[in-house]
Amino acid sequence: MTLATADLKQRIEAANATAIARLLRSDPVLVDVAPAGEAIPGLEGRMVLHAGPPVTWDRMCGAMRGSAIGLAILEGWAATVPEAERLFAGGAIRMEPGHPHGAVGPMAGTTSPSLPVFVVEDRANGTRAFCRPVEGAQQFGDMSEPALAHLRQWTSVWAPALRLGIRHAGGIPLRPMIAKALQMGDELHNRPIAASTLFAAAMAAPLVETNMPTPHLVGTLRYLAANEFLFLALSMASAKAAADAAHGVERSTLVTAMSRNGTEFGIRVSGLGDTWYTAPSPRIDGLMLPGFTAEDAGLDMGDSAITETVGWGAFTLGGAPGILALVGGTPEQALAYTREMRRITVAAHPSYRLPILGFEGTPVGIDVRLVVTTGIAPVIDTAIAHRDPGHAKIGAGLVRAPLACFESAVRAFAERYAADGS
Amino acid sequence: MTLATADLKQRIEAANATAIARLLRSDPVLVDVAPAGEAIPGLEGRMVLHAGPPVTWDRMCGAMRGSAIGLAILEGWAATVPEAERLFAGGAIRMEPGHPHGAVGPMAGTTSPSLPVFVVEDRANGTRAFCRPVEGAQQFGDMSEPALAHLRQWTSVWAPALRLGIRHAGGIPLRPMIAKALQMGDELHNRPIAASTLFAAAMAAPLVETNMPTPHLVGTLRYLAANEFLFLALSMASAKAAADAAHGVERSTLVTAMSRNGTEFGIRVSGLGDTWYTAPSPRIDGLMLPGFTAEDAGLDMGDSAITETVGWGAFTLGGAPGILALVGGTPEQALAYTREMRRITVAAHPSYRLPILGFEGTPVGIDVRLVVTTGIAPVIDTAIAHRDPGHAKIGAGLVRAPLACFESAVRAFAERYAADGS
Repeated sequence: MTLATADLKQRIEAANATAIARLLRSDPVLVDVAPAGEAIPGLEGRMVLHAGPPVTWDRMCGAMRGSAIGLAILEGWAATVPEAERLFAGGAIRMEPGHPHGAVGPMAGTTSPSLPVFVVEDRANGTRAFCRPVEGAQQFGDMSEPALAHLRQWTSVWAPALRLGIRHAGGIPLRPMIAKALQMGDELHNRPIAASTLFAAAMAAPLVETNMPTPHLVGTLRYLAANEFLFLALSMASAKAAADAAHGVERSTLVTAMSRNGTEFGIRVSGLGDTWYTAPSPRIDGLMLPGFTAEDAGLDMGDSAITETVGWGAFTLGGAPGILALVGGTPEQALAYTREMRRITVAAHPSYRLPILGFEGTPVGIDVRLVVTTGIAPVIDTAIAHRDPGHAKIGAGLVRAPLACFESAVRAFAERYAADGS
Repeated sequence: MTLATADLKQRIEAANATAIARLLRSDPVLVDVAPAGEAIPGLEGRMVLHAGPPVTWDRMCGAMRGSAIGLAILEGWAATVPEAERLFAGGAIRMEPGHPHGAVGPMAGTTSPSLPVFVVEDRANGTRAFCRPVEGAQQFGDMSEPALAHLRQWTSVWAPALRLGIRHAGGIPLRPMIAKALQMGDELHNRPIAASTLFAAAMAAPLVETNMPTPHLVGTLRYLAANEFLFLALSMASAKAAADAAHGVERSTLVTAMSRNGTEFGIRVSGLGDTWYTAPSPRIDGLMLPGFTAEDAGLDMGDSAITETVGWGAFTLGGAPGILALVGGTPEQALAYTREMRRITVAAHPSYRLPILGFEGTPVGIDVRLVVTTGIAPVIDTAIAHRDPGHAKIGAGLVRAPLACFESAVRAFAERYAADGS
């Protein structure tokens, strides 16, 4: 590692200042809910986007395979599970990571063309990002008819209704909701209840004003009021739009993606282009739902760590003690995680503040150098999927990003910018 | 004080067990929004209910006088301020405390017949309580035309709309909302934002289903989504219904009301009938809004301490650090208040739990004996009104109930139950 010369150090600090400024000024606005095939550039034909770094069908974890098979059936590309498996294995249905398309998805992160995506525009940075709905079953690998029926409700009722309401409102600014929710015990990853409720309340009047048929209107309002996880898709798209804005700054050592496909954990770094720095996906330390044990659990999976990438999720665990019923641990440990994450981040967010820490800003801007020099790996709170296809959520817990990803990135950085430091 | 004999002690414990059981099982359901004159027993003719123990016009604080004058004009009983003053001073408009009528009100607590009240039924205990809307201006003594116009919006649009929606829904259970909100950083007194948002989201579908005219519907949905203080009226009515259920248990030393009229602070005790035990209203230690100083402040006022009476408000300050921006202090102090209140209460609520304290229940059931023997006065977080009529809210802060109230109550208890102890 030859990052130590004064000249390169100065250039890195300048690059990081540019990247973090973009993260901090990010102004996410929900502008649409659209079919993924219409909204996401490059999602064409028989294609399913997935979470995390690239992974081939033969190395793909059970939950992600189940989730993809479910969408092949939903899209009408396959009538049966074996048929869908053949199409995926033979490449007749392509799979690609969502991240390079500006798309993120919870857990398996599978997104096929007819699935709706929330479209978030970062009005300060000009970026745009997409996230499919969070529903808790199909995204975990459940390919049952009820799981698919829930998605059909999305495509036929909730998504078209929200599209009308969002467009009628001229977009829904999310920064104020995020700021409020962080002061209401949300960490915006596995506890987005306050933000979901604020969103539900804010959407009511615009939805009514579209004059859609009453059954669609009432069905959508009831779904919004009951779905405590809805906002996770919005926080993920908001985080992705901000992180993409901070990506691609030459010599910046800031992390712009942390993501997992259930087989590998990968990170991307602002100054290191589109390469993923990977390590095997870790096991999650968590609480299992009744009927499941740690042996049933798949490995860490999902794009949702994009929330931690911008300083939410487990980075703000101290402000969200309500989540401990889900992931375990004590309020003191939760506060300790948030304080610990300050040691590997370069800023405290000026607008996103945590009352329990005397209104300090959330820790944001993970610097790969700080991770490697301190040995402190980013902490992530996450749901747990089954190791096999065919199950909904089976638990939740905490996990650390593998240090090896950050070490690889630092080595790659040193090689790439060796000329600067010589 | 002759409370020490073993026999009386045992009887008190049994009485308190009865009273606290009623507090803990309370199951508040919002069943209506109705004109006060229609809903509140005994509110008849030219009459205005007020907060706190009884107080005559000549001893009444400026804010309460301003608030009452505003309602006299709203009701059409007087055309001008001097005319209203004459009617109140001469007794042509009567004023009575709301508490004996089952009614509570924020700050001045003034409630006249045409004002709407939320009607909360405690389905576990069979009690019913009422609270007028919280609006932040007239309730503080502001008698300006804009302050009264806001009330007219309530009487003409929001109250009739909510009435339709609540009745259509068959009542809105509040216990689940209260439980959730306490885990979302609310203390349900000066920070009811989570509960207000949950209520707004829950009301949307029922309001739509009533088929009311779109402008009324949209206006009401917008008001609900924007009014972060709305739920205070519901938490006050819920608290009052629970406290009234716990009232009137012979030999119970539990406090069933703490309330202030801006001149005097008063408490009622379960086993001591309808007598108020009073002391002068204290000064509030708080933060003033720009343009005001501590010299402008009136003394402690309002029925809203009914929330502390049942274990919310400052009793759960540790779980609501977001309120510190309003009232001052540190998160550590907030947690210390909640822990301190355990020393003067007899139970931890089994359903209302605070994540930051490892999901411990809220401290509930103030025992006058514990207050007197520990010297720990109940803490209350509260808004601050101006000392003179004609102003909206000017600040917020913390205040302690005067120990003298509890000492008088203990003395009265000893006298009343002297025969038991001999």
